[in-house]
Amino acid sequence: MNWEQAWLKYEQDETGTYASFLSSITLKGHSEVLDTAVKELQLAAAAMYGIIPHVNESEKIPHEGIHLVVGDNDMAIGTEGYKIESYGGLITVYGESDVGVLYGVFGVLRLMRSGGIPDGYQGVEIPDNPLRMLNHWDNMDGSIERGYSGESFFFKSGEVIVSERIMDYTRLNASIGINGVVINNVNVAGAAIDLITEKYREPLKTYSDIFRAHGIKLYLSLDYAAPMDIGGLDTCDPLDEQVITWWQRTLDALYSELPDMGGFLIKADSEGRPGPFSYGRTHAEGANMLGKIVAPYGGIILWRCFVYNCTQDWRDTTQDRASASYDHFIPLDGAFDDNVILQIKNGPMDFQVREPVSPLLGAMKATNQVLEFQAAQEYTGQQRHVCYLVPMWKEVLDFRTHCASENDRVRDVVAGRTYAMKHSGIAAVANTGNDSNWTGHDLAAANYYGFGRLIWKTSLTSEEIAEEWVCQTFNREAVDVICNMLMKSWPAYEKYTSPLGIGWMVNPGHHYGPNVDGYEYDMFGTYHRADHLAMGVDRTEAGTGYIDQYFPKNKRMYSSTVTCPESLLLFFHRIPYSYQLSTGKTLIQHIYDAHYEGVETVSEMLEQWTALEGTVEALPYMRVKKRLEHQLDHAGLWRDVVNSYFYRKTLIEDEKGRKLY
Amino acid sequence: MNWEQAWLKYEQDETGTYASFLSSITLKGHSEVLDTAVKELQLAAAAMYGIIPHVNESEKIPHEGIHLVVGDNDMAIGTEGYKIESYGGLITVYGESDVGVLYGVFGVLRLMRSGGIPDGYQGVEIPDNPLRMLNHWDNMDGSIERGYSGESFFFKSGEVIVSERIMDYTRLNASIGINGVVINNVNVAGAAIDLITEKYREPLKTYSDIFRAHGIKLYLSLDYAAPMDIGGLDTCDPLDEQVITWWQRTLDALYSELPDMGGFLIKADSEGRPGPFSYGRTHAEGANMLGKIVAPYGGIILWRCFVYNCTQDWRDTTQDRASASYDHFIPLDGAFDDNVILQIKNGPMDFQVREPVSPLLGAMKATNQVLEFQAAQEYTGQQRHVCYLVPMWKEVLDFRTHCASENDRVRDVVAGRTYAMKHSGIAAVANTGNDSNWTGHDLAAANYYGFGRLIWKTSLTSEEIAEEWVCQTFNREAVDVICNMLMKSWPAYEKYTSPLGIGWMVNPGHHYGPNVDGYEYDMFGTYHRADHLAMGVDRTEAGTGYIDQYFPKNKRMYSSTVTCPESLLLFFHRIPYSYQLSTGKTLIQHIYDAHYEGVETVSEMLEQWTALEGTVEALPYMRVKKRLEHQLDHAGLWRDVVNSYFYRKTLIEDEKGRKLY
Repeated sequence: MNWEQAWLKYEQDETGTYASFLSSITLKGHSEVLDTAVKELQLAAAAMYGIIPHVNESEKIPHEGIHLVVGDNDMAIGTEGYKIESYGGLITVYGESDVGVLYGVFGVLRLMRSGGIPDGYQGVEIPDNPLRMLNHWDNMDGSIERGYSGESFFFKSGEVIVSERIMDYTRLNASIGINGVVINNVNVAGAAIDLITEKYREPLKTYSDIFRAHGIKLYLSLDYAAPMDIGGLDTCDPLDEQVITWWQRTLDALYSELPDMGGFLIKADSEGRPGPFSYGRTHAEGANMLGKIVAPYGGIILWRCFVYNCTQDWRDTTQDRASASYDHFIPLDGAFDDNVILQIKNGPMDFQVREPVSPLLGAMKATNQVLEFQAAQEYTGQQRHVCYLVPMWKEVLDFRTHCASENDRVRDVVAGRTYAMKHSGIAAVANTGNDSNWTGHDLAAANYYGFGRLIWKTSLTSEEIAEEWVCQTFNREAVDVICNMLMKSWPAYEKYTSPLGIGWMVNPGHHYGPNVDGYEYDMFGTYHRADHLAMGVDRTEAGTGYIDQYFPKNKRMYSSTVTCPESLLLFFHRIPYSYQLSTGKTLIQHIYDAHYEGVETVSEMLEQWTALEGTVEALPYMRVKKRLEHQLDHAGLWRDVVNSYFYRKTLIEDEKGRKLY
Repeated sequence: MNWEQAWLKYEQDETGTYASFLSSITLKGHSEVLDTAVKELQLAAAAMYGIIPHVNESEKIPHEGIHLVVGDNDMAIGTEGYKIESYGGLITVYGESDVGVLYGVFGVLRLMRSGGIPDGYQGVEIPDNPLRMLNHWDNMDGSIERGYSGESFFFKSGEVIVSERIMDYTRLNASIGINGVVINNVNVAGAAIDLITEKYREPLKTYSDIFRAHGIKLYLSLDYAAPMDIGGLDTCDPLDEQVITWWQRTLDALYSELPDMGGFLIKADSEGRPGPFSYGRTHAEGANMLGKIVAPYGGIILWRCFVYNCTQDWRDTTQDRASASYDHFIPLDGAFDDNVILQIKNGPMDFQVREPVSPLLGAMKATNQVLEFQAAQEYTGQQRHVCYLVPMWKEVLDFRTHCASENDRVRDVVAGRTYAMKHSGIAAVANTGNDSNWTGHDLAAANYYGFGRLIWKTSLTSEEIAEEWVCQTFNREAVDVICNMLMKSWPAYEKYTSPLGIGWMVNPGHHYGPNVDGYEYDMFGTYHRADHLAMGVDRTEAGTGYIDQYFPKNKRMYSSTVTCPESLLLFFHRIPYSYQLSTGKTLIQHIYDAHYEGVETVSEMLEQWTALEGTVEALPYMRVKKRLEHQLDHAGLWRDVVNSYFYRKTLIEDEKGRKLY
């Protein structure tokens, strides 16, 4: 193996605390999932204590060791929940299903290596979200769209790779409760169009087998034009009989060999992809056609709400990209079949460092919804900068949409607590790749781990998740420092990049590094509209009217510069540089100061990390140090470009007399 | 053939004017070049008059037809010159060499199809420049760096293509006097590294054979690190014995099979390519090492003066990319061997729509020099906009460097008239590709044709060249309109893009379309430094000191805002927006107005073209119309982005009250 085990590298525990527990495993019966659980315990026992646990097949309750119990309890913990109890020398893991037990085993191992399992411990864990998914944007040539961790480990040169790495990847997922994986880029092109054909059946069956043994379902992204691209038809109109027949035949064949496929992810009518629109059909008609075909197999259709085919003219200030998804999908509420799910990005724009919550979330009362985050740090430092995203995700999940009087937070909506949804949950664009440490930046693995843990249990704090992760990835001695670094990383990134919710200001195309006007005069609806006196976009009723999409209480909050959260001030309002913020600073001085402060924080982070030399392993130490050095340099560039841009535009001097260019 | 013959499509001439001349060809003896000349006459005779000329091998002077005479005259017309005489029914073409006669034949055919050959006509043509070269930036995967005319016709999928198109391409070159062609990108990578190895010998021999029959020499771009990349050595230090031996062996082998290879083009120590610097050697040491190896074969080494490895920090206003080449190469004057030639871009930056002339030209008195133009319209509309570049090139050639009291124009320097140079001339980055019309935009072929004609005879006017080209490509009826369009195209492009010599303001990477700050905070030394009050770069002695590189008279001219040509005002000076130009307009109003005027001109051009429907062939008519429509739209975007950028920065209203955003 030339890759690493991330948070599943079970390190030698010289205290021997859990050696006796890991000496014997008792369970009744067999299944592939239970085998996975036992193997994981064996792996941990060998690595931590150099022992091979004795596996007892028995119905009797053992006196010591670890006891895995399926179904034999009267707790309402659902099909994926588990309970852990520790009394005397015995740790018992209960689950209603094999998968629950597997999750419980990962829970036991996590506790052993982070918080500990004291005698008398009792803990029940039930996942908050039914669907807990990763979306990989991997292409079949091995590249990864917005991938910052090397090449794909699923695909290479047009082939599906079956390697040991898939097994470890699957273990990492199962250990944090991921239960669905879309392996190919939602922009389906080239060889990926054929993934649903016989050609790739064998390796996909292998994937499906490995996934199944870990409680995970395989999903594919579909090419909506496949009836034309593969089928040779001259249309992909979802109401065309030939099209329907083609999909029926193709997906029947697929399910006959891959009976537990989870379903399909589709991005249609956006970024140049064809879709139902091309034939005058609604997205509901387009999605339901596929939904009906996969329904008998228990399959689902995830329909992505990122629609921006209607590019803008920057000269037209009445159009607003932020409004597009809501305007488009709200009229379809109730029109989607019950195995069709809308997948909604957390914000109305595109994974910026700061956006308001998408007004779609909570607004659709009769439509299955999955929330989409982006763990891949496209706009948040591309895994060359540290940017711990769990605090951002928590803000989204904790946001009150006011769609209901209670259970109205985003986390309630997507967990299915607000409205009865047949399917709901959370997905993230994955941040993994073939780099030995999985995520390019060692500290970016906290976002992979953190995503899984947070969506399993949305009440976990960002600090708790960070601490768990550091304990398992590095060691207890490094917890305080690394958690501190992680917790200040997103605020720092926000400070030294685009101010107060306005977003963008990146180089076009690759989206890395500062370019204040990079997308300012482009067709993508991403404008700051800064002039000599003011900047920001008026999205109130006097402006683009976007705020109308929120429920009244939020609309009121955003409509006034006084009540609008300052972090989103420039997203919702056009503000003069002389405007006084709550700190007493003017907007322009805030911009200057924040950019200096953000870089200062990175400088602190580099110092903090340097002090960890010897505390963390040499290889990750050096890797992270090198990236932090780049981050400091690059954050300085961000600071100077953004500050100089506004200085040149306003000619307002920095009150503190620092150098502007 | 699914491509077109550009200006060599001999169209039926219903007047029959030259039918009798083309009925018989008389010459003495054979050679491949003379065969080419005869074949071209036959091709023309068949196409223009449907006749097959009778070819007479005779020493006697015929009474009529065309007589090709090699060496049999006492005129000093050099090895490539020719003389044409027409008396009675006989046209005689004299040359001191076969190649002279070939050029004369193309001259005859050009005259027949444009200006005409009246009875009694006598004309001597001697090329002004010894080296007349095209540099292709073609990669072996078939792509072309900065190519806007489709894929390469030299390379595809790592192979060298031998096709009929090479023959037609070679005819096009010979017809305008090109005598050297570098077929591969000066950034040598991938399969191209192996072009000098046995692997590609066969197709290169074919190329060389075809070229030779047309008076053209084949050149290759070299990978300076080839001793490492191919030879397996651990250095490419030009003073290392193993390196020298490796090159000697490799190039000996190459010349043994391709004895008339012209030589090699090298770009070292720039854009990340290795070079002599990496080993503490000078560029003279690096180039001479290769020069000595190819000298016995009559080969030459073209060493490209585009050095900008030392990227800049935009925050450092003392550094100036414009100064880099001069600073670097001047100390090496006299140090290069006499078969080594420095290839110098026309300006100090990089083929912008307006730059001053490179101060290197004329400043090196003891170094062979080749001037480099760029026919590929990287920064001048990428062959989607019409931009006839001959007027720009003429300005460069006519520029007085004041390096000598007379013969001090750039055209004198590169022709070898100012200082005695063993080799000199002009090269252009080619604008051709696999598109059926060769240059993507039909009107861009005027730059291909015009480059060859201009460097053959630098006294030709832009209008004369345009007229010749239109006659041969379209027809006489279209001359006035198309020449008018061509002549106003560069001024228009300049007006609606970056103002007064400041350059850039393009989208990074692909360099297409407006982005005023696109490279403003980048590392490439390409800054406008606009703030609320002023813009431009002070390159006087009070500024970066760049003007010191010019001879005193030019230095004085550039040093004052009064004597500096206004078209270069912002290149040399930092100017307030309120500064009054010679027109009486303020700088900012000039920017606004020029951008409107430039777009207005495009609008006129579109109207002019539309009026040609029926006058020019339907296919090129439609192609050009479509591109002009795009150009009008895109010029409008340029206008609005640039004007709005400066409006937002200055908040100075347009005096004419036009809409700014």
